[in-house]
Amino acid sequence: MEKGIMRFSDKVGFISAGSVVGKCEFEGPIGDCFDIHDKSDKFGMNTWEKAESEMQRLALNTAMAKAGLSEGDIDALFAGDLLNQCVGSSYGLVDFDIPYFGLYGACSTAAEGLILGAMGVSAGHFERAAAVTSSHNSSAERQYRMPIEYGAQRSPTAQWTVTGSGAFIIGNCGGVRISEALGGIVVDKGIKDASNMGAAMAPAAVDTLTRYFSVSGSSPEDFDLILSGDLGAEGGSILCELMLTSGYDIKGRYNDCGMIIYDRGAQDMHSGGSGCGCSAVVLAAYILPKLMRGELSDILFLGTGAMMSPASVQQGQSIPAVAHLVRLKKPL
Amino acid sequence: MEKGIMRFSDKVGFISAGSVVGKCEFEGPIGDCFDIHDKSDKFGMNTWEKAESEMQRLALNTAMAKAGLSEGDIDALFAGDLLNQCVGSSYGLVDFDIPYFGLYGACSTAAEGLILGAMGVSAGHFERAAAVTSSHNSSAERQYRMPIEYGAQRSPTAQWTVTGSGAFIIGNCGGVRISEALGGIVVDKGIKDASNMGAAMAPAAVDTLTRYFSVSGSSPEDFDLILSGDLGAEGGSILCELMLTSGYDIKGRYNDCGMIIYDRGAQDMHSGGSGCGCSAVVLAAYILPKLMRGELSDILFLGTGAMMSPASVQQGQSIPAVAHLVRLKKPL
Repeated sequence: MEKGIMRFSDKVGFISAGSVVGKCEFEGPIGDCFDIHDKSDKFGMNTWEKAESEMQRLALNTAMAKAGLSEGDIDALFAGDLLNQCVGSSYGLVDFDIPYFGLYGACSTAAEGLILGAMGVSAGHFERAAAVTSSHNSSAERQYRMPIEYGAQRSPTAQWTVTGSGAFIIGNCGGVRISEALGGIVVDKGIKDASNMGAAMAPAAVDTLTRYFSVSGSSPEDFDLILSGDLGAEGGSILCELMLTSGYDIKGRYNDCGMIIYDRGAQDMHSGGSGCGCSAVVLAAYILPKLMRGELSDILFLGTGAMMSPASVQQGQSIPAVAHLVRLKKPL
Repeated sequence: MEKGIMRFSDKVGFISAGSVVGKCEFEGPIGDCFDIHDKSDKFGMNTWEKAESEMQRLALNTAMAKAGLSEGDIDALFAGDLLNQCVGSSYGLVDFDIPYFGLYGACSTAAEGLILGAMGVSAGHFERAAAVTSSHNSSAERQYRMPIEYGAQRSPTAQWTVTGSGAFIIGNCGGVRISEALGGIVVDKGIKDASNMGAAMAPAAVDTLTRYFSVSGSSPEDFDLILSGDLGAEGGSILCELMLTSGYDIKGRYNDCGMIIYDRGAQDMHSGGSGCGCSAVVLAAYILPKLMRGELSDILFLGTGAMMSPASVQQGQSIPAVAHLVRLKKPL
């Protein structure tokens, strides 16, 4: 094996995917692509946290329904979210009688779940595995910053936590392939501004991406698209700049899920979308179909996560970040 | 494959382990077994959260030093803890340039990390992987209940969160083997008392254990020891009773890491120890050496976790729980 790069068997890929979003995401430029939306953001629940759990349940149910699968057909769940103790996932998926592996990778969790699910399927431990993640703007705001009812002003570099949940079912199939992965190293470059997570996460993305190019001997030109999860406008431009100083010009083929999901001008989303749900729903609803149709053939998806907590920020610590890479290819 | 049981290659096992604990754990009946302790519980830091991170750093360093390994020799970290956003792990392990997969399985995280690490090693993706977890009594009390300075009275069924961190290095070696695993299903039987987590977790342990016996065709008599992570006095007796009603008498060979680590009478630890660190340090310092010396030859280790959050309890939700099973064998 090339040091660090995980290579999966040829058939490992996506059987199906489901996406569930809230109001702002549905009103964004790719709103029509999502499977389910609720303009109240509540999904019939009486707290934001329960609404987030309900999105996960709906996302997984949708993915299973699309593939005609029931819970007995899935051997493992890899799931996580941004809420304390990841209760979005544990409560959201409690109704499914499927072994549950809880993850915490902040906004990188979708990529982390894809890697671990693909690893289990490729090794033959699971016939099928599911990766599920979510975030909810209102539950995240009150946990990380302020309850939205306070109407606090947001910084220009701040990102908007996506209300959404994406679920992926991974198996040996003829769908879009998960061909390789590279785990992210936790990187802390001293950023302390919790309203500028793009800047905190960009160095982690640079670390993973340069390691991948260097170990695999590939270059940006080998890929149709290099897609980060939620670096936003600020983090994305830092990434492109830092990559250029490392000798890799990615600008022409780079995009970010947080920039795709909203119309920043019309929707006033400052630096773009973020959250565990951001990369999950954009990948599920917008990118995978492009790979399936052959409009994209070989892409690098970088799940990016900022690993601080409100307590660690209050204690004056800087923000560590991680970026997990997954290489996705169109069907054989 | 037998449905759900993950079987690893014969050589997958523990290269080394490290354990770090605080004052109460050092003063307990197996205090002499731990590698490092600090009677101030502070480990040279000025907050409890930073102390917890420092324990993880020390535990992994100790495990690496015992095996003569440096960070370049380890291909993946699987780590988690009980703090919001798992900052005990992300800050504790940020100094290691090793790909990092964050986990949240509450107190089951040690078992979850062993399973995923063994999966990656067995499949050939990693030459060596490390699993690291921690908990700290003072950081957990103030996050989940009250700052310890308030001196709140504790319920008789309450458990004492262990101050400790355990690190395991997994690889192809001649050590104690990780032979099989079975992922836990999230089970919620309606318990709402956050001071009685043993009762909330016992049904999850019953679910995993009965599934294992039924699928593998084995019975309690096939094992020297059935060891749960932190069911405590209350949860342990519920487990034995429920197993008996399912037709499995485990009482004679059952024990719990939370009951091993403290002298409940002399130390006034109510229902026993708990926390991500509890099962990790007891396994690392007390159980693995017994397997290594052949005093135990074939055991089932059940990592148990309660997946609620303070917010979910305040919102009136009951406590979901999970139990991951790992089968450990003495060296070949």
